[in-house]
Amino acid sequence: MTSYILTLQCPDQPGIVRTVANAIAAFGGNIIENDQFTDPPTALFCMRTRFECDIESEAEVRRLIIESLDGLSAQLSVRDEGRPHRVLILASQYDHCLADLLYRQRNGDIPMTVVAVVANHPDCAALVQQYDTAFLQRDITPATKSAVEAEILALIDTENVDVVILARYMQILSPTFCSALPGRIINIHHSFLPGFKGARPYHQAYERGVKLVGATAHFVTADLDEGPIIDQDVVRVSHARQPNDLVAIGRDVERTVLSRAVKLVCEDRVALVGKRTVVFYQ
Amino acid sequence: MTSYILTLQCPDQPGIVRTVANAIAAFGGNIIENDQFTDPPTALFCMRTRFECDIESEAEVRRLIIESLDGLSAQLSVRDEGRPHRVLILASQYDHCLADLLYRQRNGDIPMTVVAVVANHPDCAALVQQYDTAFLQRDITPATKSAVEAEILALIDTENVDVVILARYMQILSPTFCSALPGRIINIHHSFLPGFKGARPYHQAYERGVKLVGATAHFVTADLDEGPIIDQDVVRVSHARQPNDLVAIGRDVERTVLSRAVKLVCEDRVALVGKRTVVFYQ
Amino acid sequence: MTSYILTLQCPDQPGIVRTVANAIAAFGGNIIENDQFTDPPTALFCMRTRFECDIESEAEVRRLIIESLDGLSAQLSVRDEGRPHRVLILASQYDHCLADLLYRQRNGDIPMTVVAVVANHPDCAALVQQYDTAFLQRDITPATKSAVEAEILALIDTENVDVVILARYMQILSPTFCSALPGRIINIHHSFLPGFKGARPYHQAYERGVKLVGATAHFVTADLDEGPIIDQDVVRVSHARQPNDLVAIGRDVERTVLSRAVKLVCEDRVALVGKRTVVFYQ
Amino acid sequence: MTSYILTLQCPDQPGIVRTVANAIAAFGGNIIENDQFTDPPTALFCMRTRFECDIESEAEVRRLIIESLDGLSAQLSVRDEGRPHRVLILASQYDHCLADLLYRQRNGDIPMTVVAVVANHPDCAALVQQYDTAFLQRDITPATKSAVEAEILALIDTENVDVVILARYMQILSPTFCSALPGRIINIHHSFLPGFKGARPYHQAYERGVKLVGATAHFVTADLDEGPIIDQDVVRVSHARQPNDLVAIGRDVERTVLSRAVKLVCEDRVALVGKRTVVFYQ
Repeated sequence: MTSYILTLQCPDQPGIVRTVANAIAAFGGNIIENDQFTDPPTALFCMRTRFECDIESEAEVRRLIIESLDGLSAQLSVRDEGRPHRVLILASQYDHCLADLLYRQRNGDIPMTVVAVVANHPDCAALVQQYDTAFLQRDITPATKSAVEAEILALIDTENVDVVILARYMQILSPTFCSALPGRIINIHHSFLPGFKGARPYHQAYERGVKLVGATAHFVTADLDEGPIIDQDVVRVSHARQPNDLVAIGRDVERTVLSRAVKLVCEDRVALVGKRTVVFYQ
Repeated sequence: MTSYILTLQCPDQPGIVRTVANAIAAFGGNIIENDQFTDPPTALFCMRTRFECDIESEAEVRRLIIESLDGLSAQLSVRDEGRPHRVLILASQYDHCLADLLYRQRNGDIPMTVVAVVANHPDCAALVQQYDTAFLQRDITPATKSAVEAEILALIDTENVDVVILARYMQILSPTFCSALPGRIINIHHSFLPGFKGARPYHQAYERGVKLVGATAHFVTADLDEGPIIDQDVVRVSHARQPNDLVAIGRDVERTVLSRAVKLVCEDRVALVGKRTVVFYQ
Repeated sequence: MTSYILTLQCPDQPGIVRTVANAIAAFGGNIIENDQFTDPPTALFCMRTRFECDIESEAEVRRLIIESLDGLSAQLSVRDEGRPHRVLILASQYDHCLADLLYRQRNGDIPMTVVAVVANHPDCAALVQQYDTAFLQRDITPATKSAVEAEILALIDTENVDVVILARYMQILSPTFCSALPGRIINIHHSFLPGFKGARPYHQAYERGVKLVGATAHFVTADLDEGPIIDQDVVRVSHARQPNDLVAIGRDVERTVLSRAVKLVCEDRVALVGKRTVVFYQ
Repeated sequence: MTSYILTLQCPDQPGIVRTVANAIAAFGGNIIENDQFTDPPTALFCMRTRFECDIESEAEVRRLIIESLDGLSAQLSVRDEGRPHRVLILASQYDHCLADLLYRQRNGDIPMTVVAVVANHPDCAALVQQYDTAFLQRDITPATKSAVEAEILALIDTENVDVVILARYMQILSPTFCSALPGRIINIHHSFLPGFKGARPYHQAYERGVKLVGATAHFVTADLDEGPIIDQDVVRVSHARQPNDLVAIGRDVERTVLSRAVKLVCEDRVALVGKRTVVFYQ
């Protein structure tokens, strides 16, 4: 038996669950997990269904489902669970998020294939090579930025990359780049958004005297720090913690939240509804 | 439109989701929420479906569903959401859990009808009366215990009580009483089970030097402190907290965990699978 | 033996701990707890010392300490622990924070004497009277606001009120009122500041799609939602929670955070350093 | 200026803070942080003081303090903060805790010098060598165990090891070994003690149906899983998580709790009082 994940999104209407259940039953599939949600503001119905069947071809299963769901005019995806998402990581000199992602890939915690790491600093080269993963260093300057972005987009194309992860990339992507990959770029911002947007959020947090600091993983849009949130978390800090302490403490929250968000996306658990996300937790 | 909650449990088999979806569609129902889970150790399939339809009679809807699901030999329940569960609370002199439950009932946080409070101390009488709820004081001694239990069982019967809550009742119910109401009695134990069973758990916790203390809401079985767990939580405590401090801090966790568990049960989100529970969170 | 709490704040300089320890030893006092912190940005030294001695007069102990610490030009307070802070609560029609505070006062969880509750709605009258506490209803309109504030200030004066608590008061105090009581008014804001300042924060949070909602207890300054933060907390929410659900879920965080902040202030554990607070936890 | 940490433990008696403050002032030291606690059951006074002075020799500072505190018959330690604790890690084939500790050492998160890693499996050799740290593989069998323990004890002696960390070592140390290093061996147990002692705690947790799983870092004594607790934490898990999922989820809690405990110990923040610990948090 092969295990598949179907995700589906369409305008809400009666009978979708039944239609999908019948479609899967029609080719002998058995539903193992099923999650659904209708988002009131957008009236979008979102569904994630994990099922098993004895058809081995993903393309064939996809064809059968599309055929059966013809009337729903749904946006849908069907993925053989044995074919993990292909991921490109953009990084900087900071290695805590990158190290955690690579560790979890090898460990089997996150089902993904990291095809390469592109960084604008050389510092993480040794780390990446320990995981037998391609490491490309590209300097980003006003002069080189658009050429590097074009090269990355080409790489995404030739390597069939599904998801791009900004693992503390520290560079602002151009609106063109962001628009080319809607819902496919994940960033980690080192604050509990919407608090402390922009630069040096831990220093801002210290100035404001907050009692918890946090991190936010979100999809990237052309609108900086305003993309749909995938996951967030916070940690308690005392008055004794200086800005540099917050930076150190924050690294733990950042790596945890980013890895959690990437895992959710790589397990097809995250749907986009307008500027918000629907997340089907296990 | 009337809103109903269907819960269902049966041995796992292919096609249940489809069968239920078709059954509900047959009388024009529209599924709003749907949760399901198959428990590996027991091979039990559990489902909770919230749907709307224009049939106003709960009995009629139940009849139609039972008819359609005939082949599944499922244990099922259908409840009109406008008809809250009927609850009996057993209490002692400690009022923190009781006060929170009554407050949340009036506030609309927990959909339940508290039919009466029975206590073996007079202390909570004024509190209960402020909520216009019947208060019965019954002394529990070795001599009176079985008569009081019989009276409570009779009250459960005449008042159509669905759920019994032990809000820090501080009395051990007889095996007969427990067995009469399987999966219908909720207790709050003032420790993070399975740690610190039995008496004076906060003092035990202090002795052991734990860094977090907790509380556990569970269904009551004849086996003390061993019933299926519904919810648990913990709170961090420092070495400076003495046993009496832990008792005070613990009150907050106890009331939170018990109220959360009662809300889950009263929203039909908790299924029993052997000695464990399946909880469909919102 | 009588137990006292000394709090002290002065520009940092060598030898303060020693000077205070010697001062207390000089009249036979024994230090039981001692916390201290020097805040780098303000270079302010803050200290909280709990000690016992056999002098029964608070005034006498204060005089002896002031005499010994003469050279430090410190701002200090000495309080007999048996003399709780006197508190005035301002409320509205929302009773969840108010109910929790009154419950914890009676329970002994928070060492305070609530001298009266002033509300601009009649709804909480019965609740307050159950605790044998004075309840004053005053309508707040543009026409009456300054007269009511003047009446409250007079009450604070005649009743020797130490701390004013805004328990979801829902009114903006005038700059004059705020300035009259620096570091003595505690507000609960129903968001995790600095996110979602202003009105309807749960609706803002829903719009932004955050995965945690929170509450913030802070000292009130003339600058709305910008006062020094005393405590904050958050709770995880799923996409399924609508704005009204967030309001309900938020009530729990609000009452918890406000009660915790009030307890900290009433135990003299909170010091103000510029726009931030130093909190000496137990 | 050189920064020192003084820790001190002695039977409680009046005047200790004053005596220590005077002792430090006598050689021109300035107290930066000061924490103290008297443990009621043992009547032990514990203190941690961070101070600066212009004496550069740790031995000289220690001598001056011991001289001044002669009358207290205290157990005390004085450490130049620039001289980190020397640590030996014992490991197995599981690398998640080990990898986190080595990463945090290099990152500066934990002030320690890892002198070597001894493992009874070859799997972690490459990881350890990436950090330029000595890796010794020693097979543990009933026949070799006592010889390996003797070799480790000798290594501890020659390398001046202060702290031994069992990073999922999966071997039971002999009572002789444990007794030789009281309060100096830290273990991570993969459950929230005292729940689920012994083998396969995540499987036990699954059987019991708990809603939170956790990990516990504790000092090792000859009494297995009964040593004084340094830190604990938990994470929420749903009914859908199978035992293998709990193992994977638990890895995150284990590495977090162990690294936190090691950091606390390496910053001299943990004192032993009987079977419990006093932890001075920042």
